[in-house]
Amino acid sequence: MGKGRLEAFSDGVLAIIITIMVLELKAPHGADLNALRPLLPALLSYLLSFVYLGIYWNNHHHMLHSVQHVSGAILWANLHLLFWLSLFPFVTAWMGENHFAAAPTAVYGLVQLLAAMAYWVLQRTIIARQGRDSLLAAAIGKDVKGKLSPALYVVAIVATTIAPWIAWALYVAVALIWLIPDRRIERALAERASQVE
Amino acid sequence: MGKGRLEAFSDGVLAIIITIMVLELKAPHGADLNALRPLLPALLSYLLSFVYLGIYWNNHHHMLHSVQHVSGAILWANLHLLFWLSLFPFVTAWMGENHFAAAPTAVYGLVQLLAAMAYWVLQRTIIARQGRDSLLAAAIGKDVKGKLSPALYVVAIVATTIAPWIAWALYVAVALIWLIPDRRIERALAERASQVE
Amino acid sequence: MGKGRLEAFSDGVLAIIITIMVLELKAPHGADLNALRPLLPALLSYLLSFVYLGIYWNNHHHMLHSVQHVSGAILWANLHLLFWLSLFPFVTAWMGENHFAAAPTAVYGLVQLLAAMAYWVLQRTIIARQGRDSLLAAAIGKDVKGKLSPALYVVAIVATTIAPWIAWALYVAVALIWLIPDRRIERALAERASQVE
Amino acid sequence: MGKGRLEAFSDGVLAIIITIMVLELKAPHGADLNALRPLLPALLSYLLSFVYLGIYWNNHHHMLHSVQHVSGAILWANLHLLFWLSLFPFVTAWMGENHFAAAPTAVYGLVQLLAAMAYWVLQRTIIARQGRDSLLAAAIGKDVKGKLSPALYVVAIVATTIAPWIAWALYVAVALIWLIPDRRIERALAERASQVE
Repeated sequence: MGKGRLEAFSDGVLAIIITIMVLELKAPHGADLNALRPLLPALLSYLLSFVYLGIYWNNHHHMLHSVQHVSGAILWANLHLLFWLSLFPFVTAWMGENHFAAAPTAVYGLVQLLAAMAYWVLQRTIIARQGRDSLLAAAIGKDVKGKLSPALYVVAIVATTIAPWIAWALYVAVALIWLIPDRRIERALAERASQVE
Repeated sequence: MGKGRLEAFSDGVLAIIITIMVLELKAPHGADLNALRPLLPALLSYLLSFVYLGIYWNNHHHMLHSVQHVSGAILWANLHLLFWLSLFPFVTAWMGENHFAAAPTAVYGLVQLLAAMAYWVLQRTIIARQGRDSLLAAAIGKDVKGKLSPALYVVAIVATTIAPWIAWALYVAVALIWLIPDRRIERALAERASQVE
Repeated sequence: MGKGRLEAFSDGVLAIIITIMVLELKAPHGADLNALRPLLPALLSYLLSFVYLGIYWNNHHHMLHSVQHVSGAILWANLHLLFWLSLFPFVTAWMGENHFAAAPTAVYGLVQLLAAMAYWVLQRTIIARQGRDSLLAAAIGKDVKGKLSPALYVVAIVATTIAPWIAWALYVAVALIWLIPDRRIERALAERASQVE
Repeated sequence: MGKGRLEAFSDGVLAIIITIMVLELKAPHGADLNALRPLLPALLSYLLSFVYLGIYWNNHHHMLHSVQHVSGAILWANLHLLFWLSLFPFVTAWMGENHFAAAPTAVYGLVQLLAAMAYWVLQRTIIARQGRDSLLAAAIGKDVKGKLSPALYVVAIVATTIAPWIAWALYVAVALIWLIPDRRIERALAERASQVE
């Protein structure tokens, strides 16, 4: 089985998730600029999730670049990741509407944590399939970002019991860490290409 | 006519169905964790339908793998399947919001039954087009899963009159039966390939 | 410019239109089967529009098959068609929720009429681009269906002032006329192919 | 990295944005034609945004035609553009529901302005990547349209403090300016092709 349809399906689901989140931004009833003010937390919440989904799409893209054949295990690991990502609109709306209250902010972090773990499982599944010479394993190396993010999510979830803004700052920090696109895989691909020559 | 656009359209519809179901999970008004408790049945209902749609996408993918040319009959059999699948968000929401009451649970099973029958019709349409040497017919063989599932749905629908949880358990059971991806078609393709050599 | 992205975009929009219509089927609050009864007109209305969009997708698919190069005029004629099709969820919901009252049934027909005219404009735009030897012009021939449908829509719209069910019967009739997929283009393509040999 | 998946993802997001806007057109409760009258501003607002998104899709399509390799910077510049476009359904609904009141009309223009600037940033990012012989730079030339539009948006935003209809007229004017598809890139491509021969 080729990877074309897996990529197309994942792109479709990610494109829909990233877009329907905006449906949670309900047009206010008032017609003046003050009517927008209560929506500001929802807008910021949307912006954060938009960036996160952009990062996932970007890295997913790079990760699948190294895949040749799609096994049943990879297919289901991918659907597992999409499931947690599909909960983003729900937790984004809940956090935004409640102006970053403690519980919604913690649940937002929990879904982020589970999505990050699902991403890690997908990565391991691909590496297991590729075997000892795994291009992906070479590319991710020590995977510092991949190990740091879940730790920061856990800290953020715990921190909501002290002050939600700590969690919020940590979510922004994780996004910034990842915003630099994952060039490791591109580099590993380029290196292998040059070794072959 | 090639099958590329049929696959792309089906992928699009399936990606949208699987994603808009999450719109039925409305963000609760309360800002504490207790506010999430009434949503638990809706979340479980969503999870079940997500897995079902993942299975349909997966098997649809395998089934079309064996198709060379798309006839008008295949096109409409495919749209017929997509119609029943498109009702999943509706029955999922109704079952989840009513905490698995008898009637919504039965209707959920009915839509599952009709989708399974539509899948079967699509399968027969493809086999009829492929003729005696049908790769798909060889691949599905006795099609035990395909025959067992509708029977279990019928049992589940009847069982809702006794206790809805029996139906619910049966839906989970059918999902588990299918969760193992359909490798029969891959195997048949591989065998034929080796015979040709 | 190739036609790949035009097809992909049209497929995407059609897949979304056909799927989000189901969002208008709100899960009822009651948990018994009687709660579904008021939804029956909405469900029938959804079924009709689903079939119409399936027909449009199918014929759109065949029509673009004959296209080699996409001009700016074709692009905008296609977007014009998609605009009217995008109003289907709105008119479908309005007609269904009002149990096929006269005005919503007439407006449903009006949007159908405008979509049919947009389809015709797209067809003429493609034929104009292809010139005298237009494969599409040869394929559609006298285009009896294409001329009959708008006439029937006009009759249906007028008939709503007498009795809405006449209009409703006519919409079903038009759908049945088109349900037979448009094999003319396939035939013309096959003939030309055999002439070339 | 190829540009195929970037195009597919952008097409997916644009197709969803253009389609979900129609969800803001809620079916009215009344069943007569008068019930549609209050929806007229929302419909006009939808039509305008539909045309704008069609223009963006069209020009995006042409712009990417000249791209060979997608860098991380292009990817994020593209997501940045999609973010502002994804706010179209929100501002369209707000402006339509408030019958083109001053504040929503100004905010509509602001999102248009930010989308236009994001488009410009994406264009510069592609040109920077292509270097001195940039095909895109040659194609857009002085980019009169691209410079005029943001200026007109600013005038429109300021004009809402005098009379919202001036802004509305300017938005229509900008759409008309762009409605003529951007043939400059096609021409530049054709010229270069002829020089190579």
